[in-house]
Amino acid sequence: MITRVITLLTDFGMRDGFVGTMKGVIYTIAPDVKIVDISHEIEPQDIDSAAFLLFNSYKYFPAETIHVVVVDPGVGSERKILCVRAGKHYFLAPDNGVLKYIFSKHQDAIVREVTNQEYFLPVISQTFHGRDIFAPVAAFLAKGIAFEEVGELTHNYNSGRIPELLEKEDKIIGEVIYIDRFGNLITNIPEEKLQPLDTKQVKIKCKDRQIMGLSKSYAEKEPKQLLALVGSSGFLELSVNLNNAQKILNAEIGDEVIVIFK
Amino acid sequence: MITRVITLLTDFGMRDGFVGTMKGVIYTIAPDVKIVDISHEIEPQDIDSAAFLLFNSYKYFPAETIHVVVVDPGVGSERKILCVRAGKHYFLAPDNGVLKYIFSKHQDAIVREVTNQEYFLPVISQTFHGRDIFAPVAAFLAKGIAFEEVGELTHNYNSGRIPELLEKEDKIIGEVIYIDRFGNLITNIPEEKLQPLDTKQVKIKCKDRQIMGLSKSYAEKEPKQLLALVGSSGFLELSVNLNNAQKILNAEIGDEVIVIFK
Amino acid sequence: MITRVITLLTDFGMRDGFVGTMKGVIYTIAPDVKIVDISHEIEPQDIDSAAFLLFNSYKYFPAETIHVVVVDPGVGSERKILCVRAGKHYFLAPDNGVLKYIFSKHQDAIVREVTNQEYFLPVISQTFHGRDIFAPVAAFLAKGIAFEEVGELTHNYNSGRIPELLEKEDKIIGEVIYIDRFGNLITNIPEEKLQPLDTKQVKIKCKDRQIMGLSKSYAEKEPKQLLALVGSSGFLELSVNLNNAQKILNAEIGDEVIVIFK
Repeated sequence: MITRVITLLTDFGMRDGFVGTMKGVIYTIAPDVKIVDISHEIEPQDIDSAAFLLFNSYKYFPAETIHVVVVDPGVGSERKILCVRAGKHYFLAPDNGVLKYIFSKHQDAIVREVTNQEYFLPVISQTFHGRDIFAPVAAFLAKGIAFEEVGELTHNYNSGRIPELLEKEDKIIGEVIYIDRFGNLITNIPEEKLQPLDTKQVKIKCKDRQIMGLSKSYAEKEPKQLLALVGSSGFLELSVNLNNAQKILNAEIGDEVIVIFK
Repeated sequence: MITRVITLLTDFGMRDGFVGTMKGVIYTIAPDVKIVDISHEIEPQDIDSAAFLLFNSYKYFPAETIHVVVVDPGVGSERKILCVRAGKHYFLAPDNGVLKYIFSKHQDAIVREVTNQEYFLPVISQTFHGRDIFAPVAAFLAKGIAFEEVGELTHNYNSGRIPELLEKEDKIIGEVIYIDRFGNLITNIPEEKLQPLDTKQVKIKCKDRQIMGLSKSYAEKEPKQLLALVGSSGFLELSVNLNNAQKILNAEIGDEVIVIFK
Repeated sequence: MITRVITLLTDFGMRDGFVGTMKGVIYTIAPDVKIVDISHEIEPQDIDSAAFLLFNSYKYFPAETIHVVVVDPGVGSERKILCVRAGKHYFLAPDNGVLKYIFSKHQDAIVREVTNQEYFLPVISQTFHGRDIFAPVAAFLAKGIAFEEVGELTHNYNSGRIPELLEKEDKIIGEVIYIDRFGNLITNIPEEKLQPLDTKQVKIKCKDRQIMGLSKSYAEKEPKQLLALVGSSGFLELSVNLNNAQKILNAEIGDEVIVIFK
């Protein structure tokens, strides 16, 4: 029998015991599972950042991993809970767009609405579905119940909004979609759009600053110098070697980033 | 053979490697155990918050789980270390009241003083009993040593102070006992006291603000509106949908909360 | 078959999913391994603190544990990646001095340069070797590949700078090398240097304050009183019972600490 992995991605923080409690529920049902924390430190209710982190990490996990996302401002409302099968992984998340990058990449995703209370805890708090619904359903999936068991297929769900690129003759206009703890600015401009270009000749503009050419690594530039490179997520990223691009540019999510190639 | 779970609840933080070192000691003795972090981010020496988090989480773990609590301002002093059997769980904690809710709920708890140095590390630092005593004793318990082995029964221990409700003819007066990262104010007024009441007619008072009626979920109210509900811990909780009740009310632990039902 | 442990010590923080992604890579290759976080919260690029935390913790893990350190300001540059065998443990770290205390203690350490791309992920990002090189190599080691497989022996590596003691006839001059979350100031003055002394007669000086004698535990002194003791890491430590020595002394790493014994 293979060991199954469950990942957890929430906005619960690590202070209040919410995550530990979910793990207690999981181990009670599926004692042999491995549990991995993706993040619990994103800002409360920051669905977009959770969506990005999930997209960056899920593909590095074994097939059949169950990814649980509980960033859920609508907890206790009529919002659905989705269980999705895509790219050999399972995803369990509220129906609020947090799976947008998964849906966008896996057009053949199979989506079910989680309704089978047989796999919930007996008492459901209206403020902590992570403990009472998400954790036990994930654990039962890890234990091997059929995907069909969680609930019916649904075609009516929120597939989210992905910030789109504006592609012109001489430039691509994108935006900052995530900022990491090092202050690196990750954009929605993917590697594929940059590969055909002359990486020494492109100019990158953001916040009235202009960068000439793409670097291959942070270390390629002098300390404190602004640079652009394809980051580990496969997107264009603005960084400062041994410093913080967010602070130096006073940047925030949504800021425009332009790649000029002519 | 079943897999045993050990939970860890400390004020050590995650920066200094204290928790990781405890896990090293545990895995050296009991390689097959599962370890779950409840919290390491409570304020240093905040025994009351640790007591509340433990009480909220322990019951979601499998029977025979060993819950280790190291919030221990008296480390290195003459304070006892307790090993408690209650409700099919084990608890290992300094004798400072951090188990108060466990003692209150499980009047039949069996309490031993941990004295058997056979299960300690060979060298004991007077500043890190978590590593040198708590971790190895927990690991040996997980490995299956008899409860009796840790030390003698004791009846002389600190059962802590639980803030009491004041129940009058027309109201219940309680207080805020925990504030979570979302700013939700958790009180010591349990669901049982509210169930007989007309939940639409009750008024809840705190810090000169008054709330009419109990909600079922955060999402039931408009964004930014103050509300009261029974939270996931089974206690009355003051919250603001998509915002922070602590900040809005400028509230702190110990603040009075009054439920008026006539 | 024994269960192998992999420890992770990085400056990645817990917010951005970097650590979770590394764990996904590890479990994909070595599903049965145990993973322990030492710390991910040290300041970005703080090699010295990482070196100290590693030294404090590694010895509490089972033999054959693989300790992975990714505090790596030179990621993507020509800096080597080292795989070290020392004291029955493995260490995987960039060649930047972060293993300095390991090298200092284990003069017989065997050092290899990690070059065998067979054990890397197929695509290598120049900004996230933690995911693409460190994690898979650690997982393959845990799975049992021979140490020789990772790459050739090297004798040309950075063994780091350890702050040295100045020993005079009547005193030892050391410095603060780490400050923990409680504000305890850990120095580079080891227990062995203090043992021969009359612990009641020694004076400890730091930042114009003077402490008479060594304590055995925090609790031995009155609350708020400055004290000195041998901490859990085996070094002289300045502390304040139930308070924060760093704040009270306005101390920082590198501050001089003098032990006067005559």
